[in-house]
Amino acid sequence: MTTRADGRADDELRPITFTRGFTTHPAGSVLVEFGGTRVMCTASVTEGVPPWRRGSGLGWLTAEYAMLPSSTHERSSRESVKGRVGGRTHEISRLVGRSLRACIDLGALGENTIAIDCDVLQADGGTRTAAITGAYVALADAITYLKAADRLNDPQPLSCMIAAVSVGVVDGRVRIDLPYEEDARAEVDMNVVATDAGTLVEVQGTGEGATFPRATLDKLLDVAMAGTEKLFEAQREVLAAPYPGTLPTKS
Amino acid sequence: MTTRADGRADDELRPITFTRGFTTHPAGSVLVEFGGTRVMCTASVTEGVPPWRRGSGLGWLTAEYAMLPSSTHERSSRESVKGRVGGRTHEISRLVGRSLRACIDLGALGENTIAIDCDVLQADGGTRTAAITGAYVALADAITYLKAADRLNDPQPLSCMIAAVSVGVVDGRVRIDLPYEEDARAEVDMNVVATDAGTLVEVQGTGEGATFPRATLDKLLDVAMAGTEKLFEAQREVLAAPYPGTLPTKS
Amino acid sequence: MTTRADGRADDELRPITFTRGFTTHPAGSVLVEFGGTRVMCTASVTEGVPPWRRGSGLGWLTAEYAMLPSSTHERSSRESVKGRVGGRTHEISRLVGRSLRACIDLGALGENTIAIDCDVLQADGGTRTAAITGAYVALADAITYLKAADRLNDPQPLSCMIAAVSVGVVDGRVRIDLPYEEDARAEVDMNVVATDAGTLVEVQGTGEGATFPRATLDKLLDVAMAGTEKLFEAQREVLAAPYPGTLPTKS
Amino acid sequence: MTTRADGRADDELRPITFTRGFTTHPAGSVLVEFGGTRVMCTASVTEGVPPWRRGSGLGWLTAEYAMLPSSTHERSSRESVKGRVGGRTHEISRLVGRSLRACIDLGALGENTIAIDCDVLQADGGTRTAAITGAYVALADAITYLKAADRLNDPQPLSCMIAAVSVGVVDGRVRIDLPYEEDARAEVDMNVVATDAGTLVEVQGTGEGATFPRATLDKLLDVAMAGTEKLFEAQREVLAAPYPGTLPTKS
Amino acid sequence: MTTRADGRADDELRPITFTRGFTTHPAGSVLVEFGGTRVMCTASVTEGVPPWRRGSGLGWLTAEYAMLPSSTHERSSRESVKGRVGGRTHEISRLVGRSLRACIDLGALGENTIAIDCDVLQADGGTRTAAITGAYVALADAITYLKAADRLNDPQPLSCMIAAVSVGVVDGRVRIDLPYEEDARAEVDMNVVATDAGTLVEVQGTGEGATFPRATLDKLLDVAMAGTEKLFEAQREVLAAPYPGTLPTKS
Amino acid sequence: MTTRADGRADDELRPITFTRGFTTHPAGSVLVEFGGTRVMCTASVTEGVPPWRRGSGLGWLTAEYAMLPSSTHERSSRESVKGRVGGRTHEISRLVGRSLRACIDLGALGENTIAIDCDVLQADGGTRTAAITGAYVALADAITYLKAADRLNDPQPLSCMIAAVSVGVVDGRVRIDLPYEEDARAEVDMNVVATDAGTLVEVQGTGEGATFPRATLDKLLDVAMAGTEKLFEAQREVLAAPYPGTLPTKS
Repeated sequence: MTTRADGRADDELRPITFTRGFTTHPAGSVLVEFGGTRVMCTASVTEGVPPWRRGSGLGWLTAEYAMLPSSTHERSSRESVKGRVGGRTHEISRLVGRSLRACIDLGALGENTIAIDCDVLQADGGTRTAAITGAYVALADAITYLKAADRLNDPQPLSCMIAAVSVGVVDGRVRIDLPYEEDARAEVDMNVVATDAGTLVEVQGTGEGATFPRATLDKLLDVAMAGTEKLFEAQREVLAAPYPGTLPTKS
Repeated sequence: MTTRADGRADDELRPITFTRGFTTHPAGSVLVEFGGTRVMCTASVTEGVPPWRRGSGLGWLTAEYAMLPSSTHERSSRESVKGRVGGRTHEISRLVGRSLRACIDLGALGENTIAIDCDVLQADGGTRTAAITGAYVALADAITYLKAADRLNDPQPLSCMIAAVSVGVVDGRVRIDLPYEEDARAEVDMNVVATDAGTLVEVQGTGEGATFPRATLDKLLDVAMAGTEKLFEAQREVLAAPYPGTLPTKS
Repeated sequence: MTTRADGRADDELRPITFTRGFTTHPAGSVLVEFGGTRVMCTASVTEGVPPWRRGSGLGWLTAEYAMLPSSTHERSSRESVKGRVGGRTHEISRLVGRSLRACIDLGALGENTIAIDCDVLQADGGTRTAAITGAYVALADAITYLKAADRLNDPQPLSCMIAAVSVGVVDGRVRIDLPYEEDARAEVDMNVVATDAGTLVEVQGTGEGATFPRATLDKLLDVAMAGTEKLFEAQREVLAAPYPGTLPTKS
Repeated sequence: MTTRADGRADDELRPITFTRGFTTHPAGSVLVEFGGTRVMCTASVTEGVPPWRRGSGLGWLTAEYAMLPSSTHERSSRESVKGRVGGRTHEISRLVGRSLRACIDLGALGENTIAIDCDVLQADGGTRTAAITGAYVALADAITYLKAADRLNDPQPLSCMIAAVSVGVVDGRVRIDLPYEEDARAEVDMNVVATDAGTLVEVQGTGEGATFPRATLDKLLDVAMAGTEKLFEAQREVLAAPYPGTLPTKS
Repeated sequence: MTTRADGRADDELRPITFTRGFTTHPAGSVLVEFGGTRVMCTASVTEGVPPWRRGSGLGWLTAEYAMLPSSTHERSSRESVKGRVGGRTHEISRLVGRSLRACIDLGALGENTIAIDCDVLQADGGTRTAAITGAYVALADAITYLKAADRLNDPQPLSCMIAAVSVGVVDGRVRIDLPYEEDARAEVDMNVVATDAGTLVEVQGTGEGATFPRATLDKLLDVAMAGTEKLFEAQREVLAAPYPGTLPTKS
Repeated sequence: MTTRADGRADDELRPITFTRGFTTHPAGSVLVEFGGTRVMCTASVTEGVPPWRRGSGLGWLTAEYAMLPSSTHERSSRESVKGRVGGRTHEISRLVGRSLRACIDLGALGENTIAIDCDVLQADGGTRTAAITGAYVALADAITYLKAADRLNDPQPLSCMIAAVSVGVVDGRVRIDLPYEEDARAEVDMNVVATDAGTLVEVQGTGEGATFPRATLDKLLDVAMAGTEKLFEAQREVLAAPYPGTLPTKS
């Protein structure tokens, strides 16, 4: 039987950790680790919304994802120096934003913007799914912060929890939470974003130089949704502790 | 019962047409229409491959998607003038390239590149799926052209056909091939890229300000895969006619 | 005697066609063909004017010209991907805008902007002159649209018709409407923009690696102005038919 | 009778001066003044040619035109800071390059490039025509420099002289060498590039919010070509003096 | 007497910590903390040198500094998204590179490049001096790595240690290692880069809306150089431990 | 004894000249020459201030430095064409702005901006110090202009004079005002910006591939401050003459 290089079962997640209050300036700041993948996820609150949304009374949530040049196995070039954001970066930033907007009532924010930043400090596969999962925790902290400051129109704007995980077919087997060495040779690769209500937010499955039968898609989804259940448990556990910094007093 | 504005059944495609030989310079040039959505899809052959692939003996296939400024209901700004390609454009270009690379043996091309261009002349929903479906036909023509010129290492480098369709939940109903007015208010939106062998290449499903149960995903896939079957028939029919231009003679 | 490759007389235009209502979203949309050169010309109306013109009560007309990557004999690279508009593109965009502003009373528009887009689908010489000639027809349709919507301060803001044609010296002979194969080896190249009142809007003549006597300039102008007469006839004929779409009713 | 603000006759040039050897690093460096318009024109020689020309054995001549931010009546913004070259700058750079390539046998240079830079220190109308006229003198000096260094394949690669002048219709009168205050309100504006052999290199005439009869074009050309005769005299006179710096000895 | 908000003496550094092996992909990776300022400093080795240095037999060291958007008190915008690197970022990147090149014999590297990346995770004043001080430790680890891989021409290419500290005049008093709240209101601000041999690499002193007498400069230097002595002790102490990862074996 | 190539003593400046009224559109325009280094420095007044300063009642002073492509020994590429400003350019622009803001009471300007442009026509070392020294003279002229127009809130907003000079260690000797050939091989390089009150504005000292003892820093400062004294004398002398253009009358 083919076993995984790190000894995990096919449906076993890597060790997952969340460090809340990883930095102190943003309202929410979380270092999320999915094994060797480490992403700093922050949620910053700024007054105002983009021009196209002004006057609506609604808030906005935006997200940016990026990899530090030294986060990859071989150093990659810096997008600010190249002067343009690459297609992959753009695509993941949009995915993170869409995923988190699925759980929040933007009307509750008033005309304020929450900016999510997911900066990959170390990449070992699954950076986008770790980013989404960590960003949810940072977002939850930012909401706690806003509530303490009495800046919400509704006391609970988050309607559900959000987590994401990668699944794929490697060596002909369906596996979860692929590290880089598996991801690089996966035949099928899928990212699933789900809610703790058991519903789906995003499903993105891709054959990598191969195509896949629908039965494989079903199997991948089974494994992914079992995995997100474990991620929700981990999120709940870490969020059970109090807000990691000093909360503002109502103004 | 809610009916669709254009009178279609929920699982009925819009009228699909392919005009081969739409322009004459590229080896393959197809105008594809999915109802009011019209995309010019071309496949141009150039010698050489990108630097990272040189010396491999393998070819490459790349794709670029773009919308003309006047293709949308309200004129949109021109990306060349803004000086940067937007995230959506980047994302769809990558999707088109991945989708078509799934059906081609790049080794058969030698160190040549096929550049797919999908330029949207008129947008009315489903531009990315029309682009993929039309680009397959342009690619098939380009392969015919290369074969006539005796430039292929393998007489049949295409292992399957590729088509794509959008599906979504609108007014609580699962529908196929959404026009703009349905797409703009869909609760769930999914794009499916499939092969005529019944396998999947890409599945991208998104809740738009909503989340969706797995049963909906299954229903959406059922409808989509029935739709791609009809697209394969249309592709087969149009490709039964001879190459629309003058083929090169073997050099 | 040297004859032209396509059998035309030296002072004979290629077949000219205009397809009004080529696409449906813009107020004016015309596919113009000068032989193998095909340009999609649209005129879109948007509210407001650029910042430097606000408060003047005057409208504005702007124009953008671009070639699709697959429109040329050898595929050319996409300017949006390169991140900058090339000098030739800039220059022609400016020429198209200046040419059409010569025939319109911008005061009649109120503070609205007409955006002209000329996108070359297939290039075979004379793309800029075809663009101007086709854009006039699109502009005329947009004016009809605005009049129907009761959005004009003056019922006839167009003071004349505009058309353009290329002329040049090829094989020592003065010829009109050069296709690519003549244009590429022309000794002198001139573009003339004229009005149906017999006046000139722009004259741009260039020696291509050669200089030319004034007598040649005179001969080129004679031929060009006879050619634009034929273009005005063609424009008049096609514009005699009713507006190709549904006109708005007065609001 | 309407007289010009600076007292000139309609067909009279402003005072024209050339300062050769204005700076010392380039092979040719000339400050040209057309009245208040002052342009620093340099011709720098570099080894090698652009990639598309390598291996041809032919040289190349390229030109860049730019205005210093403080050269205009109201300070204009710096194009390097904006991150893109504007359309007008692009257009004039291309014009200067084409104009000077009309007088030089590029085969005589071997695979070397002459880079012309025309930087406007002070703008008062006619900057592009002053730039071309001054750049010819800088080019002649650079050729003298290359000849002294024994780097030419042909001792006299310049086949003619090049000069340019603006003409226009102002207050209903045809005038030459328009300063800013006339240029800003000219009804017709034309730039003519000519050779001392009496031939034309470029003619660019534009109606500014107006159109013009062919008779006006003829009158403008008469005046322009008389004006370039005077510019050739001035060029000949200033070039009669020896090279303004130290010539290299043959290597 | 005015005391500092954090209770330090005027000439007292904030707590300094170095975490070697902070990430695992680069040859050297150090998290440096100067109080609340936290910078991830990495040293990555890549084969080859920039084009202008090829064939010299010498290596190169380059550096890039950047702040994460969420690192500042108020979130700042992302330079990759803006499409250009700001002046401050450019300036500090250049400073870091120059500073570290002062201690390394580039000939010992052969034609290899060491890329230093300093990414600020949390900013609280003195980010550039922390970056330089931490980058030295990362560089030392990268050299240990290269030595183990037998890729150095010289066993000890580092000729000295490098550290940097900020000093300034705040509330009329000369102070060291300014946090943000002091930096923002400092009258004079100076950054000093020094070697453990007691020499200087860079001195950059600036009056912030004020000028300063030379006596102040002398006092600032006294304090800074005493401070760098303490930084060298801290560097020595942390570098006394073995390399934090797995060293390569000689190939 | 090693003597300097141009025969100067180690502590002797090159010939310094200022040409006021070098161009006529800006309120202040000065050509400054430090030997072969020639910089055109202008001070342009525009209404309004940057967005972040609006409503403050305070003015602003901004500066941009640039080198013309032909100003260097070997022609350098044009930053506007490259589409980005280089790090060195950015850094010097910031230095010039900071230096001049040290001498001006921005409150006296009201909400107006003075834009300083320093364009290097010819580079022979010390361009940034010449730029600052010349820009002070242009600024003084712009202030005279504003005073005449009655646009100042305070009749004397300049609190001191500003000048700058380069010093360095070349051939082991401390020298002032290094020309290019000395600068290129200097072991230590320092730029000092000082006021006529004997205080310092900026000190930037750098070891170039070497480090330097503090005693050298002291010696460099001695020489530099003696040099700026001479520059203040030269500035005073040239500013003793009246404003070089026509002053506005009070409105």
